[in-house]
Amino acid sequence: MPIYHAPVQDTLYLLNDVLGYGRYSNLPGFADASPDVLEAILAEGAKLAENVMQPVNRIGDMEGCERHDDGSVTTPKGFREAFDQYRDGGWMGLAAPAEFGGQGLPYTVHTAVGEFLSSANMALMMYPGLTQGAIAAIVVHGSDEQKKTFLPKMIEGAWTGTMNLTEPHCGTDLGLLRTKAVPNGDGTYKISGQKIFISAGEHDMADNIVHLVLARIEGAPEGVKGISLFIVPKFQLDGAGNPGARNKVSCGSIEEKMGIHGNATCVMNYDEAQGTLLGEENGGLKAMFVMMNEARLGVGLQGLSLSEVAYQNAVNYARERLQGRSLTGPKNKDGKADPIIVHPDVRRNLMTMKAFNEAGRALLLWTALNSDVAHRSGDDTDRQAADDQLSLMTPIVKGVLTDKGFDHAVMAQQVFGGHGYIEEHGMSQFVRDARIAMIYEGANGIQALDLVGRKLAQNGGRAVQAFFKEVGDFCEENRGEEKLAPFTKALKKGLNDLQAATMWLMQNAMQKPDNAGAASTDYLHLFGLVALGYMWGRMVKVSQARLGETADGVASFHENKIVTGRYFMERVMPETAAHLARISSGADTMMALPAEAF
Amino acid sequence: MPIYHAPVQDTLYLLNDVLGYGRYSNLPGFADASPDVLEAILAEGAKLAENVMQPVNRIGDMEGCERHDDGSVTTPKGFREAFDQYRDGGWMGLAAPAEFGGQGLPYTVHTAVGEFLSSANMALMMYPGLTQGAIAAIVVHGSDEQKKTFLPKMIEGAWTGTMNLTEPHCGTDLGLLRTKAVPNGDGTYKISGQKIFISAGEHDMADNIVHLVLARIEGAPEGVKGISLFIVPKFQLDGAGNPGARNKVSCGSIEEKMGIHGNATCVMNYDEAQGTLLGEENGGLKAMFVMMNEARLGVGLQGLSLSEVAYQNAVNYARERLQGRSLTGPKNKDGKADPIIVHPDVRRNLMTMKAFNEAGRALLLWTALNSDVAHRSGDDTDRQAADDQLSLMTPIVKGVLTDKGFDHAVMAQQVFGGHGYIEEHGMSQFVRDARIAMIYEGANGIQALDLVGRKLAQNGGRAVQAFFKEVGDFCEENRGEEKLAPFTKALKKGLNDLQAATMWLMQNAMQKPDNAGAASTDYLHLFGLVALGYMWGRMVKVSQARLGETADGVASFHENKIVTGRYFMERVMPETAAHLARISSGADTMMALPAEAF
Repeated sequence: MPIYHAPVQDTLYLLNDVLGYGRYSNLPGFADASPDVLEAILAEGAKLAENVMQPVNRIGDMEGCERHDDGSVTTPKGFREAFDQYRDGGWMGLAAPAEFGGQGLPYTVHTAVGEFLSSANMALMMYPGLTQGAIAAIVVHGSDEQKKTFLPKMIEGAWTGTMNLTEPHCGTDLGLLRTKAVPNGDGTYKISGQKIFISAGEHDMADNIVHLVLARIEGAPEGVKGISLFIVPKFQLDGAGNPGARNKVSCGSIEEKMGIHGNATCVMNYDEAQGTLLGEENGGLKAMFVMMNEARLGVGLQGLSLSEVAYQNAVNYARERLQGRSLTGPKNKDGKADPIIVHPDVRRNLMTMKAFNEAGRALLLWTALNSDVAHRSGDDTDRQAADDQLSLMTPIVKGVLTDKGFDHAVMAQQVFGGHGYIEEHGMSQFVRDARIAMIYEGANGIQALDLVGRKLAQNGGRAVQAFFKEVGDFCEENRGEEKLAPFTKALKKGLNDLQAATMWLMQNAMQKPDNAGAASTDYLHLFGLVALGYMWGRMVKVSQARLGETADGVASFHENKIVTGRYFMERVMPETAAHLARISSGADTMMALPAEAF
Repeated sequence: MPIYHAPVQDTLYLLNDVLGYGRYSNLPGFADASPDVLEAILAEGAKLAENVMQPVNRIGDMEGCERHDDGSVTTPKGFREAFDQYRDGGWMGLAAPAEFGGQGLPYTVHTAVGEFLSSANMALMMYPGLTQGAIAAIVVHGSDEQKKTFLPKMIEGAWTGTMNLTEPHCGTDLGLLRTKAVPNGDGTYKISGQKIFISAGEHDMADNIVHLVLARIEGAPEGVKGISLFIVPKFQLDGAGNPGARNKVSCGSIEEKMGIHGNATCVMNYDEAQGTLLGEENGGLKAMFVMMNEARLGVGLQGLSLSEVAYQNAVNYARERLQGRSLTGPKNKDGKADPIIVHPDVRRNLMTMKAFNEAGRALLLWTALNSDVAHRSGDDTDRQAADDQLSLMTPIVKGVLTDKGFDHAVMAQQVFGGHGYIEEHGMSQFVRDARIAMIYEGANGIQALDLVGRKLAQNGGRAVQAFFKEVGDFCEENRGEEKLAPFTKALKKGLNDLQAATMWLMQNAMQKPDNAGAASTDYLHLFGLVALGYMWGRMVKVSQARLGETADGVASFHENKIVTGRYFMERVMPETAAHLARISSGADTMMALPAEAF
């Protein structure tokens, strides 16, 4: 059986010591999550993850969801009960507005706990995860009536939510969508069409399901300018706001997928289902992006989560599996062989994952803090700077953490040798589950285009310049620190490559847009390396300063951080040069072949 | 439904134009496979792959194999019939010795056809694949009696073979194995023990199954020096050499795996099963390596095969799927969107796969030719040089083609977006099937250690020096060729990085063996890049010379080759520098943490 231990200590270190969580106590909600409350919440979240969510993860994969002839869907054994505990613990509303029943705590805290829960059971956590996105969209774009009707139930976890975007012929290119909305004349609409790949589209864990559905109002303009967003509940609401008559929306089938079997991925059929407009007519894309941005961070989190749990299991196996002898002589002299953790190539895998996970966690929490500041600060300058960083980092968190999260699930599986390929050890599930995160909520190629095509140039490049300055200043300010110098030097080299790539894009992508597309994925990963390297710079600086402390285990915790940071600089950062070389080669060769030559 | 078209034209180009297949007509078997016969064989192999093997590939994944209470195993629907056609076509004995009923044709031809067949149905092809390894071991180490008894039936395909190495507590470290062999006093042995992960261990497609089993003869020395190899047939043979009484070996269960569901991966229980010694007492490891080396090339082939078929499906989808518009303006003006092949980032995926597949095929066929020369040439010098290259390239072909093969199956799946994650399109199967090739027949970490720990220093580094000289000479000789210069320059840069890494290993790995282990995987891939780059150098040289030809399609075939080679040099080769940087960072950081710090 796979194991999992929530990295509570590392999360507290990042929030309190590295990211200065304490400095934000003036923001709404932060005072209610003071450092000791934070610690208690993380400990509770860890328990929920380890004792409730993780034990039903494998069964979710093996059983999957079952659709019955009447269109109802049964989730795997134990999922309902686990979700009940999640609901009863008030986890759904942790960071939701207090006026609708939430606790109003920082999104950062929600994110920290979210990592634990998704490590433990990604498929199950998608049910509340999609609900969070729907809540965010209703908070921002809902009428007072819609907020009052839907938010308390959703924040309580009594009802869940979904996002209905994709249709058989369109995913990325939403301008092509065909689902129709016909006004009833009373402010409601009849929605008709078919949506596919709808996560948590139908299930047995909530009293109602609130579908947010993109559709085209009759007579609307073509393309993305004619798309509106609708709220279509599974059960229409009676006068008292309780679930009443069944709406004409149903699950037509469940997709057979590579992974996340515990989540019901549905084909949803809308046959004149009744809905109300959410946000403005033809403003669906904007309203959808509220969900989408929230969801993208949540998907990046999934990448990290699976990298972490897969890593923990690989470590566990590497410590226990006896096979071969150390190249430097037997380490387990009484045994017939050494544990495989003595082998450098096994360590290479473990260290690569560890160095990524710790920096990825830092990047995710840093971005979550920026999200809190962007949404809660009263200071215009702070808010704008934080929003810039949030916006810039969203595609990077989504794209890089999921690409690497998958790579690391594969790497962890490799540590198991043949045993990793057998389903019973659970490593295959991590790989199969992690795979989807690179695809949904905008495939990673789209994240890369979002970065080079939109985020880079937004507001005259303000966000990217601020990031370059922040990292550059960090290197400059610490140049004199002898022990930190090897780290800042490697980081500066990465930053230089990133700046050179940025310059190349500015000079070559304007007149020839294909050069931007051809560079995009390499640029995304180059940016990710520098952002992760910057996190390592900050962590190492903190840990070097605390090496002298004498409390139990503190010194070794910080020593380990410094070693891991050094590994990142030595073994991971050199990749920046290869990205720059590829980017600088441009689009010509890539685009030269006619389509039929492939 | 996935598509597949065997790359016959590319294979003929590689063999005839690039690798000089015609030069080998003096070797045994080559005269019987003259260029026109070769073409006919490839065409027949392509038909078998496309029309017989590929149509049952998906069903093999969905149905899997079923074990019945009596230990018998049923293969998926259609597998028996497909295997019958393989057998009836004489494919099993294509390259096997004529004296035992084989056709004695070049191993190179067998390899070329093997790629097609594994692309079409990897799980099915494992049944004859394992048989080939067993045939090879019996040819080299069998007594005359054993050869006469087993080879004709196996070469005919009436009986299949297996390799029984792994036990629950030992895979890589075979010295730990416990399966026992007790002499009966009549030259036979009683074999008892449990073997796991036995591919094709039990099935319904052959009249007998010839298990080659590693076991320890009572009283043998500990460790690998006490291991012997045995032939243990499923049915003991009667006086006439026909299957008679059931031997005491049976399939205890079938593993539930991530992929290759069509192949029965068995737990095999030996309970005083009767067997005969194959090769020398305690010489099992040596005898096993005959199978193993053959199998490693076969697994490298699987990596290429899946990369190719996944690529073909991605190309097909990218040409047909309409989504979004080209960054340079609409290309499909009458449609609502352009095919996604217009997008640079989609092309990046396709070109990366294409550039790898074509060079990977060249490397595989080049190595197969060396294998033929090593085994068939009458010239000592030729034979030794070829054997050196074969031995050096075996871990590279296995490790690099399977790592990249898997990466490319994932990449091809990504081109499909959400549709790639759904089982019905078959892309998930390619990913799940490709995953095992990185693990079995020596996990890729073991291949990397084989390269740095054994192959590099063998015979004073003769093989590696010969390879460096061959590539260096190619660059030097073509320095004056203006059109070729950009290619040789990039190749030379890669070679320099490889030579620097080799020098670093020589200077740093002797006194500190962990430096070799820490460098091994990067070194394997660095070597692979240079080997693939060298293949591109040779292909481009040939194609540049043939650009002027006027026959139908010839010019465009060669133009496409040159573009693809350029892509490889621009976008893939830059990775060599990152590998060198990582290698040069040594083992210290990697080994610094105590095991409990992970």
